[in-house]
Amino acid sequence: MAHITLKNEELPGIVGLLNYRPETARPLLNLAETLLRGPSDLTSGEREIIAASVSYWNNCHFCHTSHAAAACAHLGAGLGFIDEIKAGLPNAPVSDKLRALLHIAHQVQKGGKNVSDADVAAAREAGANDSEIHDAVLIAAAFCMFNRYVDGLGTWAPQPNEAYKEMGERMAFVGYGKS
Amino acid sequence: MAHITLKNEELPGIVGLLNYRPETARPLLNLAETLLRGPSDLTSGEREIIAASVSYWNNCHFCHTSHAAAACAHLGAGLGFIDEIKAGLPNAPVSDKLRALLHIAHQVQKGGKNVSDADVAAAREAGANDSEIHDAVLIAAAFCMFNRYVDGLGTWAPQPNEAYKEMGERMAFVGYGKS
Repeated sequence: MAHITLKNEELPGIVGLLNYRPETARPLLNLAETLLRGPSDLTSGEREIIAASVSYWNNCHFCHTSHAAAACAHLGAGLGFIDEIKAGLPNAPVSDKLRALLHIAHQVQKGGKNVSDADVAAAREAGANDSEIHDAVLIAAAFCMFNRYVDGLGTWAPQPNEAYKEMGERMAFVGYGKS
Repeated sequence: MAHITLKNEELPGIVGLLNYRPETARPLLNLAETLLRGPSDLTSGEREIIAASVSYWNNCHFCHTSHAAAACAHLGAGLGFIDEIKAGLPNAPVSDKLRALLHIAHQVQKGGKNVSDADVAAAREAGANDSEIHDAVLIAAAFCMFNRYVDGLGTWAPQPNEAYKEMGERMAFVGYGKS
């Protein structure tokens, strides 16, 4: 049970919180929509992989699995790809650019000051431009917020990957805060 | 110098980043405005103290000092109050409720799962209601984002408290994203 009394205890993860406080839900959903589906030099699939990876490093099961499922939907991958993201994508045909941006995202997850000039130079070397580095840092930072919001209020989350299939498709193809 | 080439290198902290990417600036500013100046059972002064404290724990000088200066403006306090916030408010006449919410915010800063039933029970005992606990958790989480955004992209920040006086007054009395 969540730390506060939500209107609908059956709504999992952030869904119950957005429902509890519509005033703060609106800018949070606009931010997710802009970061993950708005114009960017990164594809939505790449951005959802960053979001899902940061959420995994932050040990937030709901955010990790739902955003990994959104990545699956964008990429046309099966749900097994959720566990591939958990493992750091050892077998996925992922670009050097995305790997370098995921390293920067991991540094951001540990704390903003961990991002070094060398990390940024390596991402540039792998083909990332300024706007991609910007977006990777901001997405990683934003999921340090979403994950803490979801877990700091003690919300519940379905366990199996399969429970996130439809949610991931809705996040990918309909969007955030749209029905 | 920041890790990416900003349009105006002289703009400090998050200001240069908001200027660099207006598409993501909009939802970020709406979120700050809603969290810190929108309707809430917590005063704006209390909310800015939470924002400034979390930023201090995250070692983000720009966010800490600017939001502490905003708290000073709301409370009519001198800029010495910035250092009082750094020290954990040992001498300030702060309510037991705010102290309990600051403890929850500190747990959130370390990671969402650190918030315990006992932490929440103590806040309730000190007079906090569900919506205040919600807002404290979300503000703490949001500053784990803002701090990582500002430091993850290596922005610069003015050092002395005095450099933040006008900025704090503008944040308190004009608002976020308004001119």
